[in-house]
Amino acid sequence: MTARWAIAGILAMALSAGPARADDALMRDLVDGNHILYDQGVVDGLGHLSARNPQNPNHFFLARAVAPGLVTADDILEYDLDGNALDAKGGRSYVERFIHAEIYRVRPDVMAVVHSHSPGVLPFGVSQTKLRAMVMGGAILGDGVPVFDAAEAGGTFGFLINTPQLGKALAAKLGSGTVVLMRAHGDSVVGRSVRNAVGNAIATEVSARLQMQAIALGTPVKYLSPQEIANQATVGANPNTTGGEERVWNMWIAQAERHLR
Amino acid sequence: MTARWAIAGILAMALSAGPARADDALMRDLVDGNHILYDQGVVDGLGHLSARNPQNPNHFFLARAVAPGLVTADDILEYDLDGNALDAKGGRSYVERFIHAEIYRVRPDVMAVVHSHSPGVLPFGVSQTKLRAMVMGGAILGDGVPVFDAAEAGGTFGFLINTPQLGKALAAKLGSGTVVLMRAHGDSVVGRSVRNAVGNAIATEVSARLQMQAIALGTPVKYLSPQEIANQATVGANPNTTGGEERVWNMWIAQAERHLR
Amino acid sequence: MTARWAIAGILAMALSAGPARADDALMRDLVDGNHILYDQGVVDGLGHLSARNPQNPNHFFLARAVAPGLVTADDILEYDLDGNALDAKGGRSYVERFIHAEIYRVRPDVMAVVHSHSPGVLPFGVSQTKLRAMVMGGAILGDGVPVFDAAEAGGTFGFLINTPQLGKALAAKLGSGTVVLMRAHGDSVVGRSVRNAVGNAIATEVSARLQMQAIALGTPVKYLSPQEIANQATVGANPNTTGGEERVWNMWIAQAERHLR
Amino acid sequence: MTARWAIAGILAMALSAGPARADDALMRDLVDGNHILYDQGVVDGLGHLSARNPQNPNHFFLARAVAPGLVTADDILEYDLDGNALDAKGGRSYVERFIHAEIYRVRPDVMAVVHSHSPGVLPFGVSQTKLRAMVMGGAILGDGVPVFDAAEAGGTFGFLINTPQLGKALAAKLGSGTVVLMRAHGDSVVGRSVRNAVGNAIATEVSARLQMQAIALGTPVKYLSPQEIANQATVGANPNTTGGEERVWNMWIAQAERHLR
Repeated sequence: MTARWAIAGILAMALSAGPARADDALMRDLVDGNHILYDQGVVDGLGHLSARNPQNPNHFFLARAVAPGLVTADDILEYDLDGNALDAKGGRSYVERFIHAEIYRVRPDVMAVVHSHSPGVLPFGVSQTKLRAMVMGGAILGDGVPVFDAAEAGGTFGFLINTPQLGKALAAKLGSGTVVLMRAHGDSVVGRSVRNAVGNAIATEVSARLQMQAIALGTPVKYLSPQEIANQATVGANPNTTGGEERVWNMWIAQAERHLR
Repeated sequence: MTARWAIAGILAMALSAGPARADDALMRDLVDGNHILYDQGVVDGLGHLSARNPQNPNHFFLARAVAPGLVTADDILEYDLDGNALDAKGGRSYVERFIHAEIYRVRPDVMAVVHSHSPGVLPFGVSQTKLRAMVMGGAILGDGVPVFDAAEAGGTFGFLINTPQLGKALAAKLGSGTVVLMRAHGDSVVGRSVRNAVGNAIATEVSARLQMQAIALGTPVKYLSPQEIANQATVGANPNTTGGEERVWNMWIAQAERHLR
Repeated sequence: MTARWAIAGILAMALSAGPARADDALMRDLVDGNHILYDQGVVDGLGHLSARNPQNPNHFFLARAVAPGLVTADDILEYDLDGNALDAKGGRSYVERFIHAEIYRVRPDVMAVVHSHSPGVLPFGVSQTKLRAMVMGGAILGDGVPVFDAAEAGGTFGFLINTPQLGKALAAKLGSGTVVLMRAHGDSVVGRSVRNAVGNAIATEVSARLQMQAIALGTPVKYLSPQEIANQATVGANPNTTGGEERVWNMWIAQAERHLR
Repeated sequence: MTARWAIAGILAMALSAGPARADDALMRDLVDGNHILYDQGVVDGLGHLSARNPQNPNHFFLARAVAPGLVTADDILEYDLDGNALDAKGGRSYVERFIHAEIYRVRPDVMAVVHSHSPGVLPFGVSQTKLRAMVMGGAILGDGVPVFDAAEAGGTFGFLINTPQLGKALAAKLGSGTVVLMRAHGDSVVGRSVRNAVGNAIATEVSARLQMQAIALGTPVKYLSPQEIANQATVGANPNTTGGEERVWNMWIAQAERHLR
């Protein structure tokens, strides 16, 4: 990893001539997070991960239109909240960057956003069965994740969020939550940091698969109570458990690097 | 990749003495497409991928009878629409090359064909449940994929399409669609290019698995409306989204090459 | 592969001093078959594959008690039909070698036997739902695979086939078929060669998974008719399709060697 | 493996200055067991494996808070039954070490404990369907595994076993059994050795998946009878079958080392 990041560091330095360029650690998490989401099966060739610029909350970082598993530090562009790249470096932008822009606009607590076609989650986006908190790691799903339908929101380009208006409608459906499903399309997941958003996206995928299996057992499923959901948020913020986030991240990146080399 | 393709290039040059031999890029996509279909689990040791010869629409390229994951540029043969190899190079031909030949004969828009025993798709070929467009990536499935039954079509060699007549019957069942299921056997999927056909075959496999899971949730499933299916075709042809095809292909081939080395 | 088999060849030569030692090709298929069954998920640390000695039909070859994925040519022992190793070479024998011995005794057509805890198959061994021919590759399952219950057959050592009597009872339940399920335990699968038996074991696993998924779609499943089952046996024996066996075997061993190195 | 263990051996020697430090073989099984549980999908970034100190039954060995797949001999700490590390070496401890401590306190026969979020098992922890012995390898599940609910046991920190009291309540629910499910959380599995506990944890995961699939077939499932469950325990203790444990362990560690290098 050392060698690889030495090179990435040199690239990042070369790129960071301007003052707007964020710190190396954030860039590294953003690249690593892309690889982890791919390695964990949340994204495939499509999907994307962004981070708000901590120096300028009206800007965010997002790769140009490459597959998450192939993203390098050199691919990361900086966007404003209208979805304009400050310097596109000749690259194509993700058509759906408005998902990120419009969530950052209305959710100051959100520092990172994942959009994916998470395969375990997709069935819940077309079903009357709600994706709900059933295991402790899935408490972020609350008592049921809202489902956004681009068709109902006036989308004219299939199910894609290709305009600021559709991004605003999606952000409104997300509300103050962590996850919003997108009918026939996937989901969008937010977090208080890149690592938290990536962890939330993976937890959503894992929880969805577990819920499917519990339902298939054919007897009633016990979901988390509102009180248990609230407690879990407290636990997640406790310093005794936040160590778990780093522990898991270290495993994820070690695994992704093994698989991607 | 460079070294490997340098060798493939030399081979291709050696093979391309005659004027009928297509361009390197097509051969490369054909070899890569075979590896991708294997790596993505659409084909195993059986199944095949062909491309129409753009210089001679009455000819097509197809590997001799080797497993898709092991196909090299040297294995690619050129066939006429009666399924005769121009030069078999001492190799055995796929018994079912008539699938390709007869689809090319009646569908001038089709430039590539995949035949596989796609495991997610097989259950729909023996079920009264229709494989249908449920997610945007599966819009090619329309309001239900037709199922071909070789036994009903007079097949005398199990379920194999080993004669021009059976190939014609299969092509008729495909009609103007993109996918045709084959009872107890698999499916055949077409596209406007090798990359498009490979992408369609993978989308069919992925969509089938998602539909199974949505059904297993036990509540009604919302499928794409006819209007949404039609819209999706427009989106797929739009230059703003066709970039997605290349993005995904780059990921697929990078992944397949990692796994196959 | 060359280097590895050069070494294996030397070992085989060293071992083949006596006249009973079979040819290199059979030993190679036996070792490769063990690795393939492991790589394809039919066996894990347990399970075994044997081959009848073509020079002496009352003897068979079977590894000493090592995990299939770790079997080398040096591990292969020769047994008589009472389950005695001619030379145990200090190794422990599989407790269940009587499965092989007693099937060889009553089925002269059988040249190889696989016993495994094939995970897709196990659910059918404890269910009233019959494992049946539903796809062409699963025609060997006929109109329903018999289920052997060691408990009913007087087994006193759990479900293990640790005596000639239990082996005889299992062979009787297999009858003239290709597959016999073993309740709470796994299955045993036979073939006319090592490659055929390995192929049959994998086809059984794959077919079982497909049947589970077809059933989960919730609508009636169309199985192969008796006529279709009979036709499929004819197709399998036809020289035009037997090429498929070699094609698939080449892929399987290439894949297993990649994964095991 | 030689090189790696030579290094681990040197580390272990350096660490074993004090007389309480256990033998190399146990440390090696503990590290290997962590890697195996990760490679087999029983644990991901979370979960842990401990071993009672054979020289001091009131102490046990457990890694500091790192992901199981990344555990090295240097990470192993020694704890007393109140969950205090003798020398934390500056590392953070697993919040849930009380699971291990309190089981060792009341179960002198237990020499190793696994705690995990075993994905096949989780659905049974929130369902009215009991996880039961259905296949011979799952006889340890008996006629139904008890489910512990931290919420009912007065847990105030989500579902985590972060106090001796909760550990005691969990150990009481385990009783004299081998497996206890933990609602919305995972399970804890014990054994008479590290290898036995790891084997039991994997058998629990595998059995759970098989039971789900058998249920999905939609017809009644035949479970092991009380007599069959009892017999199986006898078989497991027989010298003719304990060879199987070593055979499987050798395969597991070979596979984990291939995947982790």
